[in-house]
Amino acid sequence: MTTIDTNPNVMTLTNVFRVDPSHCDELVALLTTATTDTIADLPGFVSANIHRSDDNSTVVNYAQWTSRTDYQAMLENPAVQPHLQEAAEVAESFDPIIATVVHSTSRT
Amino acid sequence: MTTIDTNPNVMTLTNVFRVDPSHCDELVALLTTATTDTIADLPGFVSANIHRSDDNSTVVNYAQWTSRTDYQAMLENPAVQPHLQEAAEVAESFDPIIATVVHSTSRT
Repeated sequence: MTTIDTNPNVMTLTNVFRVDPSHCDELVALLTTATTDTIADLPGFVSANIHRSDDNSTVVNYAQWTSRTDYQAMLENPAVQPHLQEAAEVAESFDPIIATVVHSTSRT
Repeated sequence: MTTIDTNPNVMTLTNVFRVDPSHCDELVALLTTATTDTIADLPGFVSANIHRSDDNSTVVNYAQWTSRTDYQAMLENPAVQPHLQEAAEVAESFDPIIATVVHSTSRT
């Protein structure tokens, strides 16, 4: 289970993929496979959470890494790059946002 | 603390705000106030998590609601609308994505 709070030792990647709705299933499947087969074993991986929009036009990956250095190393890892290229080909665009949680409120 | 998993009883709103970096602090503050003063008390609220991008150009609100009906009712609530208008004025754009978690992997 993934948790969100203002832990300063976690960075967040929110990657917003736009996709032709007819390719949404394919994009979800390849991001899931990239995560479970390769990315989840890399140093600094904390979590990846794949979301499908109601209209199938958008896939959001909400991912957490221990550090920006580990995230950058993942992007440059030869085992990961074919997965990233495949996602870039299936998606129409992607927009990775590197951020920090500055506020969290949850119903208790 | 917020948790993410494939719970079918939670919907996710990922709202991506673009902002002039000089107004990033203001946008974070007003989204935080809107959450703690008003939105967190509404029916169906589960969580809101405000993120600031490293370059201060983007604020991401990763929020969870019990249902799309409750989320829609929040948007139409007269107590919430001034907060939404204020955020829309400070931000350059916003892009609310209504989605469902279809895959979650976390390092255990």
